[in-house]
Amino acid sequence: MKTVDLRGKNYLKSRELELLIKRSEMEVEQFEESVKNILKDVKEKGDEAIIQYTEKFDGVRLKPEEFLVPFEELEKAYESLDEDTRFALEVAFERVKKFHEAQIEKSFFVEEEGMILGQKVIPMERAGLYVPGGKAAYPSTVVMNAAPAIVAGVKELIICSPNPNRYTLATAYICGIGEVYRIGGAQAIGAMAYGTKTIKKVDKIVGPGNIFVALAKKNVYGYVDIDSIAGPSEILVIADDTANPEWVAADLLSQAEHDELAASILITTSEKLAKEVKNILYNRYLVNFSREDIAKKSLENYGHIFIVDNIETAIDISNYIAPEHLEIIIKDPFSALEKIKHAGAIFLGEYSTEPLGDYVLGPNHVLPTGRAARFSSPLGVYDFIKRSSVIYVNQEGFKRVEKYARKIAEAEGLEAHKLGVEVRLKNI
Amino acid sequence: MKTVDLRGKNYLKSRELELLIKRSEMEVEQFEESVKNILKDVKEKGDEAIIQYTEKFDGVRLKPEEFLVPFEELEKAYESLDEDTRFALEVAFERVKKFHEAQIEKSFFVEEEGMILGQKVIPMERAGLYVPGGKAAYPSTVVMNAAPAIVAGVKELIICSPNPNRYTLATAYICGIGEVYRIGGAQAIGAMAYGTKTIKKVDKIVGPGNIFVALAKKNVYGYVDIDSIAGPSEILVIADDTANPEWVAADLLSQAEHDELAASILITTSEKLAKEVKNILYNRYLVNFSREDIAKKSLENYGHIFIVDNIETAIDISNYIAPEHLEIIIKDPFSALEKIKHAGAIFLGEYSTEPLGDYVLGPNHVLPTGRAARFSSPLGVYDFIKRSSVIYVNQEGFKRVEKYARKIAEAEGLEAHKLGVEVRLKNI
Repeated sequence: MKTVDLRGKNYLKSRELELLIKRSEMEVEQFEESVKNILKDVKEKGDEAIIQYTEKFDGVRLKPEEFLVPFEELEKAYESLDEDTRFALEVAFERVKKFHEAQIEKSFFVEEEGMILGQKVIPMERAGLYVPGGKAAYPSTVVMNAAPAIVAGVKELIICSPNPNRYTLATAYICGIGEVYRIGGAQAIGAMAYGTKTIKKVDKIVGPGNIFVALAKKNVYGYVDIDSIAGPSEILVIADDTANPEWVAADLLSQAEHDELAASILITTSEKLAKEVKNILYNRYLVNFSREDIAKKSLENYGHIFIVDNIETAIDISNYIAPEHLEIIIKDPFSALEKIKHAGAIFLGEYSTEPLGDYVLGPNHVLPTGRAARFSSPLGVYDFIKRSSVIYVNQEGFKRVEKYARKIAEAEGLEAHKLGVEVRLKNI
Repeated sequence: MKTVDLRGKNYLKSRELELLIKRSEMEVEQFEESVKNILKDVKEKGDEAIIQYTEKFDGVRLKPEEFLVPFEELEKAYESLDEDTRFALEVAFERVKKFHEAQIEKSFFVEEEGMILGQKVIPMERAGLYVPGGKAAYPSTVVMNAAPAIVAGVKELIICSPNPNRYTLATAYICGIGEVYRIGGAQAIGAMAYGTKTIKKVDKIVGPGNIFVALAKKNVYGYVDIDSIAGPSEILVIADDTANPEWVAADLLSQAEHDELAASILITTSEKLAKEVKNILYNRYLVNFSREDIAKKSLENYGHIFIVDNIETAIDISNYIAPEHLEIIIKDPFSALEKIKHAGAIFLGEYSTEPLGDYVLGPNHVLPTGRAARFSSPLGVYDFIKRSSVIYVNQEGFKRVEKYARKIAEAEGLEAHKLGVEVRLKNI
């Protein structure tokens, strides 16, 4: 972990900041070709391609009728969890659903003389949720991706997951998702985008995955909708001398343990805090830590402590980085809220630790990474609905605006656009 | 234009429908390589690459300081328009802005014991609008793309357009956009996505363009946000025997004149209407029509009249096609509204002709094409804002949920996530 003193410096020009920013700009061309081939095969050969690639990559030979996990397996997985874990997941699902209800968007209709203009909000019909298999399978992924779709009113929600573990299956059961396919990788994305004989195509694909899954999602975008492509995760903590170094250190580590590419960043006005946090991390928390290898690499490469002159500078840097998670642990955290321009989730105050938000508070943990907070939002109900404009004009309304439409059609040289207005005008 | 009688048939399985659907699935691999090279050049060489490609493709050699159109040119273009056209565009801009105000999304904050959970809505900082040059430059494009961004509160809105014509410049002036660059193609998309010395990078790129522009947008997606990739345009008219064949024919033609790939589709219960519409199109409207070549090709390849048993079937087919524009010209058009599942814009009743919606009513004319209405929306204010989750938990709130977070962290094997909770628990 690098400590960089930016006091008195042109802080937005620092080399360390530049490298941090560049971290999310990795090129992945080398896998592009194989992902495209997999997608093409799935599009052309359907189930047969799924069988081949599942055998090749996941080492399982399945018949098409074995893609779907039998409902009893979901039930069994649910019953296999201890009661506390089960209850915790149920609480999480309920709380996340409840928060997302505030995101529900209503249709609207505005009346004007001779017109009704509006917007009809309609949930998507069918959505697919990708859940990674093996080690990286997190029940919270299922909760966070399923809840907004369910609140939006999506009728058919399916899961694709290679070798799904019992947590994935149990959480599917909790969320009321009965259609779970044990397939993964780019081939699962292809199946959801194009459809096969066994798997009906979806309208939107969401959920995290490895580089193959991410590239496949990017490639099928347009055919179907996708959520944003998740890059490596990041946390940025803004703290002053009122912050508890143990708490800050734990929160930084909770990001670093995710992924070698994760970035944990502390920006502080306190030299003392900077020293203590680093000391606690390396001399206490990382000793005998279960995910030491991952966390150490992450901290070595992307862990940074920036010491700055004042909180304004810290916020400025944070806005430049546009972090996925932003914790503000300062004397009056609410005073900073207004100045935050780009962040996936903003955690205010010392008790608002990221893991609470990751699991159980209610807001979504699927957040824009790699500076995408400049232009995208947490996963939400708005990701699972679409809108249709509704236009009704009667003769009265027509008369009020027709001449402007004719004038613009003329300017654009679109004769038939003008004609559509003129033939009606004859009638009046 | 093909007339297909689907009465008594398994209509969703008709070959004609299948071919219509496939029309939007064209592969464009052959341009992928050159677009990627252009983007790479712009990323690496900045302005220099812009100069080279603008010379190569647009035949103009510009210095970097000539990229920006001087403000006086915008003003002059505005003054060059006749008063009626100017006023029509101003009315359009005002009406479109007003409609979009109904889409404004507010931040929300929900209080619970020991917690405040919410969502902060923030406009994007800087957006780029691509406007095609030459023939395909439509002032309405500027209005429809600029208005939602302006209503959303985007501070910096720029336009890139190769050889922008006076309508583009005048409409930029009307919309209050002072930053217009005379560059286009994939190189303009690259400049907006990566930034150059002269052109500051944006957070989102919107607007139509040729295949190079579309591919470039798809390639930079992730770096910056983009609107959906527009495919060829389509109109679907559902009409019964109450519809005026002249009006229906004009509306179909107004789509066909756009583009050889545009699809104009009539679904009707009336054999008589089917015959009359076709007759009027070919024997009256297409005679001496300014855009005859384009329209004829479009109608020949993608123009269809489907005769069906009843309006329910017509709606069913329409939902399958998920058309960009849907006109419903039947006795009680409102009765159909509830059954429409997928359509970009729904025009109800005989006076609600598409050209009015294209130009002046208020709803956006940038609409999902090629079945994308299954999962996407008209361009709107929601495309130019993003949301940040806001989380505040005090000790009381923390105590209410901490055990669930610990339990799930255990299930996921994320030790540091649990630690973040436990170190705080010690304090209580």
